[in-house]
Amino acid sequence: MSESEESLGRGKWLELVRQGRWEFVRRVNVSAVVAMIPITDAGEVVLVEQARPALGRPCIEIPAGLVGDVEADEDPLAAAKRELEEETGFTGSEWRELFEGAASGGLTSETIRFYLVRGLERVGPGGGDDSEDITVHVVSLDDLHTWLQSKAADGRAIDAKVYIAPWAAGYKAQIG
Amino acid sequence: MSESEESLGRGKWLELVRQGRWEFVRRVNVSAVVAMIPITDAGEVVLVEQARPALGRPCIEIPAGLVGDVEADEDPLAAAKRELEEETGFTGSEWRELFEGAASGGLTSETIRFYLVRGLERVGPGGGDDSEDITVHVVSLDDLHTWLQSKAADGRAIDAKVYIAPWAAGYKAQIG
Repeated sequence: MSESEESLGRGKWLELVRQGRWEFVRRVNVSAVVAMIPITDAGEVVLVEQARPALGRPCIEIPAGLVGDVEADEDPLAAAKRELEEETGFTGSEWRELFEGAASGGLTSETIRFYLVRGLERVGPGGGDDSEDITVHVVSLDDLHTWLQSKAADGRAIDAKVYIAPWAAGYKAQIG
Repeated sequence: MSESEESLGRGKWLELVRQGRWEFVRRVNVSAVVAMIPITDAGEVVLVEQARPALGRPCIEIPAGLVGDVEADEDPLAAAKRELEEETGFTGSEWRELFEGAASGGLTSETIRFYLVRGLERVGPGGGDDSEDITVHVVSLDDLHTWLQSKAADGRAIDAKVYIAPWAAGYKAQIG
């Protein structure tokens, strides 16, 4: 994998790179990406909805955030806790890192650390920071697919990673 | 969403775009992306492993492919069937489109159509086309997370979408 790289273009946040016959995009000035799967005691998942210009429409997603974009040496778990509260207004008392997963290995170097969050408490309205306009949804896992399909029919994009939530919600059972 | 776009760079496969304060990458000359979740009668999922220069290491993924990169008007389902057999050596008798999901709406316009595939039959070795070198893994869903974690410890990247398989495998039950 030591083939030399060529930059095909670079913005403030992303760089497009060619390596041999491959092309991919990488984030610039970000040390990690975190995503949170917050599950309530009632068996609901907390989701966020926000405008995504890349998709041309709002997208429904699990809460997520960049690490190291503001403070270079920020701890990923600390960033995840901050982002969850900023975006959703929830804090959680139980955090477990589940796995690190690639977003789309054919086109980006991005990998994401996934956290299961339980012991949720609503402490604020959420909605994101000054640059964000986030709507919070608390959705029963039993109705998740039906709910997402109705939102898709209504013009929302759905982030594929939302469909990891049913597995994550059952995770605790798997380990006893 | 009519803010004007500026191209920051373009390769053969990808283009980096700026729109207002947002940057994202889009695929060029591709009409859709398909991903297949093949579940055997024995409760296993069929996964693929291949080199991913973007990640700097091999990645374990659900089978997937581009639509329209060879024939502009190719049907997504037909492409999905062709790619599944090419990559894994399996054909399936039952195909169901589950949903369309964004890969990572913060950095790419890519969306993926997910198919649940059952009635699997192994008809060839798989491994991909001449430009690909794919290893096929057939993994019990009961052991999926443990197996993936051992592969991660052994230096493989894991595509996050693999963790959609447990939900998809239970999908049939949900609709009776």
